[in-house]
Amino acid sequence: MAAAAGAAVAAATATPDEDPRPLPGPSFGRRAVCSRPYFVVLMVFAHLYVLNVLGLLLFVHISSDGGETEPGKEGPPGPAQDPPAPPFSSPGGGGSRPHSLPRLEGIKVGHKQKVELIPNKIHVMKTLSLKPLLFEIPDFLSEDECKLIIHLAQLKGLQKSQILPTDDYEEAIEMIDISQMDIFNLLDHNQDGHLQLKEVLTHTRLGNGRWMTPESIREMYSAVKADPDGNGVLSLEEFKQLNIRDFHKYMGSQKVKMSDLVRNSQHTWLYQGEGAHNVMRSIQQRVIHLTRLPSEIVEHSEPLQVVRYDQGGHYHAHMDSGPVFPETACSHTKLIANETAPFETSCRYVTVLFYLNNVTGGGETTFPIADNRTYEELSLIQNDIDLRDTRKHCDKGNLRVKPLQGTAVFWYNYLSDGEGWVGDLDEYSLHGGCLVTEGTKWIANNWINVDPNKRRQLQFQEEMARYTNSADEDQSEWTVDKSYSNVHVEL
Amino acid sequence: MAAAAGAAVAAATATPDEDPRPLPGPSFGRRAVCSRPYFVVLMVFAHLYVLNVLGLLLFVHISSDGGETEPGKEGPPGPAQDPPAPPFSSPGGGGSRPHSLPRLEGIKVGHKQKVELIPNKIHVMKTLSLKPLLFEIPDFLSEDECKLIIHLAQLKGLQKSQILPTDDYEEAIEMIDISQMDIFNLLDHNQDGHLQLKEVLTHTRLGNGRWMTPESIREMYSAVKADPDGNGVLSLEEFKQLNIRDFHKYMGSQKVKMSDLVRNSQHTWLYQGEGAHNVMRSIQQRVIHLTRLPSEIVEHSEPLQVVRYDQGGHYHAHMDSGPVFPETACSHTKLIANETAPFETSCRYVTVLFYLNNVTGGGETTFPIADNRTYEELSLIQNDIDLRDTRKHCDKGNLRVKPLQGTAVFWYNYLSDGEGWVGDLDEYSLHGGCLVTEGTKWIANNWINVDPNKRRQLQFQEEMARYTNSADEDQSEWTVDKSYSNVHVEL
Repeated sequence: MAAAAGAAVAAATATPDEDPRPLPGPSFGRRAVCSRPYFVVLMVFAHLYVLNVLGLLLFVHISSDGGETEPGKEGPPGPAQDPPAPPFSSPGGGGSRPHSLPRLEGIKVGHKQKVELIPNKIHVMKTLSLKPLLFEIPDFLSEDECKLIIHLAQLKGLQKSQILPTDDYEEAIEMIDISQMDIFNLLDHNQDGHLQLKEVLTHTRLGNGRWMTPESIREMYSAVKADPDGNGVLSLEEFKQLNIRDFHKYMGSQKVKMSDLVRNSQHTWLYQGEGAHNVMRSIQQRVIHLTRLPSEIVEHSEPLQVVRYDQGGHYHAHMDSGPVFPETACSHTKLIANETAPFETSCRYVTVLFYLNNVTGGGETTFPIADNRTYEELSLIQNDIDLRDTRKHCDKGNLRVKPLQGTAVFWYNYLSDGEGWVGDLDEYSLHGGCLVTEGTKWIANNWINVDPNKRRQLQFQEEMARYTNSADEDQSEWTVDKSYSNVHVEL
Repeated sequence: MAAAAGAAVAAATATPDEDPRPLPGPSFGRRAVCSRPYFVVLMVFAHLYVLNVLGLLLFVHISSDGGETEPGKEGPPGPAQDPPAPPFSSPGGGGSRPHSLPRLEGIKVGHKQKVELIPNKIHVMKTLSLKPLLFEIPDFLSEDECKLIIHLAQLKGLQKSQILPTDDYEEAIEMIDISQMDIFNLLDHNQDGHLQLKEVLTHTRLGNGRWMTPESIREMYSAVKADPDGNGVLSLEEFKQLNIRDFHKYMGSQKVKMSDLVRNSQHTWLYQGEGAHNVMRSIQQRVIHLTRLPSEIVEHSEPLQVVRYDQGGHYHAHMDSGPVFPETACSHTKLIANETAPFETSCRYVTVLFYLNNVTGGGETTFPIADNRTYEELSLIQNDIDLRDTRKHCDKGNLRVKPLQGTAVFWYNYLSDGEGWVGDLDEYSLHGGCLVTEGTKWIANNWINVDPNKRRQLQFQEEMARYTNSADEDQSEWTVDKSYSNVHVEL
């Protein structure tokens, strides 16, 4: 809309040059120009002109709203029914609906398309899978840019991504009033009266940050004499004869190493907003061009996460964001939505992952079930093989991306809702970082946060726009810090 | 563009009503109104106004063309590069590009979306697979409509979809000057110096309309003593010692039944254009709403094919359309494109299949490799099991749709090209009609023909529009027959 108005002004300004025809007839004197009739005519035409321009702009606005209406809903396009919100300035065009999120087309695995992310430079984007919708773009970052990001991350300092479990968990567990029978029913997913290893493995929280494997569970059973017949399955009778506290004691007594955790890496966050290093800002612009998402959304997402995996590092397969139910809040909009919600997730619509160095050995990104026909086709967790285990079973997954300096991969963690917005979580987006067998692995993640609740997202953007504007006016020198402290308080 | 101009006119007309403010100052006399200065000022403003409106319209035109430009291609949008063609009147809106084909979103298998195909009636469309993009819509036709279509087809009369092979083929083959070594190389797909059964089965044309099975090939080998060791594989040595004429003689001597053919059914064509039964026309309108494709394209596609499978009928798995190479012509545009092309295919972008009755036994539509992770994941043709065989192996395919009176299924035979037009053939669209074990099966097919060569398709539509207009003017009573005889001459 703003662009349309701008063009209208430009067209108005340009017009005199475009009509070089000399006016016919003799020149007229000063009196005629200053006369009242002249003034009246001028005013009438000026009003007519302004009203016509407004009418045309209104028409443009309405007809672009009606461009992608509901299937089969015919008839003249009506005015937009969405709540008003700051206009998107999506680069490269993002469909004709004002508040819809463009979603790239994958076409088919192996499809290559050219994209212009930097003026006069063509990148090739290759479709790696359709479930999840996943792309690879070599040379997204230059070698120097990769080195700079690593340098900035080191300057800022990295912290362990996950700390070793404390005793708090065991203590907290003891406080919870839940019967042994309830625990059994919670774990017995298929309700067959037996706990298979698979059912215990599925509940990753049982491990309190420790990654549970079929072996570690068998060891635990053996230590607390839970499975006398040693078949790896606990019958209801076997379970009843146990003292749950023995489990907790055993867990607490175990010496835990970093490699036993779900995630063994170090990370830090780098800001990309106003005032940040121009390379950091430039990368953000490239991400906007790549994903074709509204710049407001990308700019108000989480900062860049830089991650370092040392030799022996890994990140078992996980989703970057959680499922969204009506009662789920998004971390980035919860403050502004001002709603109390029992669940919260980070609502990361898109993950853009950058490889910052070439890894000597291992460190691939694995998508174990990418493009499976059904989610259950290959059972993800068998009793003896857990495909999510990136230390042991990376070779058995469907898709692995080799880390290559400067390459970016990006994927959608959520499906479309069919109406141009974020829909359900894409379960196929499950991924992990394979064991680094030699050397160090540096990557960075840009997550683009969108609330699947459109109203909350638009409200968030409105508030952010208002905030940024008022900050600009009042205390421009503090803008950067203040906006970050507010936006990224939860990171 | 025409609509924009219309709105501009409407806005201009409406303006005086929208500015009811009385003009300030005293009224002025006739002399002032007729004065030369007044005229000059009026002309200047009139010119400015017209130029500004033109500028705005140009901007609207350009920005709607540039709305979905290539990824990352920023900067001021340039003028449209597409050749001019009649504007599409796509119902429900078809995206912002003037000549792009909307493609529905499948979201995920099992996803349901509501569609309004008939005013005030909601249909539910369910995604059955993503590869191919396949939907099911129960109650698309009423029971009466199904009965009427069957009735009309019977009135018109049905013919065998495929006739028994004649001797012409064997005679023609004998005329071809091709060495035995060349034939071997043509068949030896994996170039291992041996002809596996699989390699022979792949070349369906060898059967001259007869469906070849591992058993029938083994029988033939045995009859002409081609495979002394009986392992089903012909080595180069075994092949060299054969007389190819023995094969042809054997083929010619075999008694062929209808059930031995690729397709065992009867069919006829029903027109849906102007002058057709209002139910036929109404179904076409529903197809336009369902697919959201431009009505010009749907209206100039093939007529409705009505097919009857008697007990024992089948159609082995096939694609409804062929691959498209630069040198391939489409049946529907070849006359108008006036190009000579060595290959031709029917360019059926979309298949809409209607089930006209409930089948007592069998008769499902099978999509044997739908949503496979890779095309080769499950090898389609093994030496002993050919998944394309709908008489024997329908139960082994990935997806089967049960025929249910009134239900429609539709799918895309081609992928998107990523730029809003038709791309490559979707190999996953392979499908067939399973053996009817009991009763009769009636279906109908609406194919929507689009030339993957956009220029040729637009040229075709332009010609069709011109033809229809001139026919309307000149000899309205003959329009129907004449346009059909021309459009559908190839059917």
